[in-house]
Amino acid sequence: MGEYQHLLCKRDGDTVTITMNRASRRNSLSEDHLRELLAAFQEAGAGDATGIVLAGAGPVFSAGHDFGDVAARDLVGVRELLRLCTDLMGTIQSVPQVVVARVHGLATAAGCQLVASCDLAVAAESAGFALPGGKGGWFCHTPAVPVARAVGRKRLMELALTGEAIDAATALDWGLVNRVVPDEQLDDAVADLLARATRGSRASKALGKQTLYAQLDRPEQDAYAIALEVMASASQLPGAREGMAAFLEKRKPSWPD
Amino acid sequence: MGEYQHLLCKRDGDTVTITMNRASRRNSLSEDHLRELLAAFQEAGAGDATGIVLAGAGPVFSAGHDFGDVAARDLVGVRELLRLCTDLMGTIQSVPQVVVARVHGLATAAGCQLVASCDLAVAAESAGFALPGGKGGWFCHTPAVPVARAVGRKRLMELALTGEAIDAATALDWGLVNRVVPDEQLDDAVADLLARATRGSRASKALGKQTLYAQLDRPEQDAYAIALEVMASASQLPGAREGMAAFLEKRKPSWPD
Amino acid sequence: MGEYQHLLCKRDGDTVTITMNRASRRNSLSEDHLRELLAAFQEAGAGDATGIVLAGAGPVFSAGHDFGDVAARDLVGVRELLRLCTDLMGTIQSVPQVVVARVHGLATAAGCQLVASCDLAVAAESAGFALPGGKGGWFCHTPAVPVARAVGRKRLMELALTGEAIDAATALDWGLVNRVVPDEQLDDAVADLLARATRGSRASKALGKQTLYAQLDRPEQDAYAIALEVMASASQLPGAREGMAAFLEKRKPSWPD
Repeated sequence: MGEYQHLLCKRDGDTVTITMNRASRRNSLSEDHLRELLAAFQEAGAGDATGIVLAGAGPVFSAGHDFGDVAARDLVGVRELLRLCTDLMGTIQSVPQVVVARVHGLATAAGCQLVASCDLAVAAESAGFALPGGKGGWFCHTPAVPVARAVGRKRLMELALTGEAIDAATALDWGLVNRVVPDEQLDDAVADLLARATRGSRASKALGKQTLYAQLDRPEQDAYAIALEVMASASQLPGAREGMAAFLEKRKPSWPD
Repeated sequence: MGEYQHLLCKRDGDTVTITMNRASRRNSLSEDHLRELLAAFQEAGAGDATGIVLAGAGPVFSAGHDFGDVAARDLVGVRELLRLCTDLMGTIQSVPQVVVARVHGLATAAGCQLVASCDLAVAAESAGFALPGGKGGWFCHTPAVPVARAVGRKRLMELALTGEAIDAATALDWGLVNRVVPDEQLDDAVADLLARATRGSRASKALGKQTLYAQLDRPEQDAYAIALEVMASASQLPGAREGMAAFLEKRKPSWPD
Repeated sequence: MGEYQHLLCKRDGDTVTITMNRASRRNSLSEDHLRELLAAFQEAGAGDATGIVLAGAGPVFSAGHDFGDVAARDLVGVRELLRLCTDLMGTIQSVPQVVVARVHGLATAAGCQLVASCDLAVAAESAGFALPGGKGGWFCHTPAVPVARAVGRKRLMELALTGEAIDAATALDWGLVNRVVPDEQLDDAVADLLARATRGSRASKALGKQTLYAQLDRPEQDAYAIALEVMASASQLPGAREGMAAFLEKRKPSWPD
């Protein structure tokens, strides 16, 4: 991984960990920070790792947009910033790796959007989640997009309208995160979930993840129209061939990719 | 607020409370009652209140359509009645105020639809929720629309096909309501949630609420296409400017609207 | 019901039970098995039963596609198999009867898809649910379509990416099944839920079920456009007329169909 000013990136085995490292600014998402996150996900996405962990240094996971970088912008400038932010969220979902959010503290506004946009999320018991624009002057319109798709409608309304934080246990109950563990077990839990989520054929998994996002939030027949074609094509790939052959021959598969 | 035959309307501080007052008819939704509810929401929506509470007088929240007002109608007549009812549900979601359902008793059929259509809902422990058309002769087709969007699919099917009531605790677990409290604490809980949900810039909140409904139930990229443009525009409004300035200057905001 | 090689079909009162009977192949879905399931649902669908139970013989509910019937197929052949499978899922949702999955053991891949595609599902405590393609070489693209529409997004991702099984209690918590009971109470629980779900006018229920699937997963206004027209039309049918008349005359309804 290249050098980044606002990120710590490390490769450990098949996992790349991208750590937001603007602790003094609560890992808020200035344009520079967003550009680096986008570049880091693109770089990791083009590599041969199978999993990516998104983490934050310091007491806060991420406080969302950096008002110091928004307040003076005109409409065109804010629009560009939000387009960049939306591109980051889309890139997290389109990279072939499984992306897990490691949430150790507060994740608010676009920080909460990051958690909702990662494929999976593991939270420490002391984590919290909020869409605070609802109690201020700039509503969390775009953060609410992926959050709405993880929790139910009434819960989205409560988060977005009150702006108040929910704790990790509530986030688990509502389906915003996949695991909640004591703070000192966070790294182990992230590694364990990622190991389980990255088994099997890498090419098959990448296609699988990308197709899930393509078929969600559509009428069921439209979703089938997508998923059926991809699944038929995927059956002809080396991973599927090997998986089926190994099953039928009662041996361990040897993934070709 | 104007005078209504079937409603009690009162203004208390920044909150308008609209109480369905056809207790002898279990607050069922005759055409007259629907027309008054629509007019009252339009009137309150055009005013300067920040929150609206929808409540019911008597033992039942609302029993849904008034069969006495449906049974003799032909297709055109029922269609007009359902269009009026659907307009009411849409108006609840489009008024700039935060709308909270105060559910003290049974909410069935279009009564349950009202609960699902309000932004937030607080239920007393003795409340219940049902789509009873499923055990009768006229299925709850339109009530199922917002209920489906609050609870999961299998739970919707159970409600709609069995026609049986779920209790308040189940409604909370399934995401149909936001709070369940002992009956005697219902008013306090409604006031508390509404106070939390109406803080901040009124114009920002109104735009936020309306955009949430616009982006729900769409493929994620379509939702972003809406939310991004609104959020960029909203950044230029006085509320956002003041919110960011106050944050950066470490002072309390003074909302301009 | 006709004779089937891979199925046991029986009629008991108003209920048809279709039991997958390829226990030695873990009720996997070979082309022949799929064709028979499709034919059996079409046959039962055209009959006068009010409910259909889908069950499995042997220790497993269904292991999904039969790799022995997939491995040698080319793209066109797999596509035809998946189209047949998708037709079966669509037929389960379009028959006029209420369809309940009776899940006594593991339901994996397309077996889990069957559970998610039935209107309702009752599971024994020893049941399990998985999308195992995620840890292999052929991702569960099409099974994920209905599963995604029953559980939340993060939970779908966990099921699909890890390939691991969840137990019956978790499936209940996530909304994939409607009831979990001790194994020995499974038949009673299925019969009880089906009895509750098949009361009332048969024609009304059939229209209701079909309209629910038509309106799901669409923007709310699109869903209302469908549900409103169906509900207006349905008000003119004998079932609705009788239901309303019986209610207003305070007598028991006598369903005309």
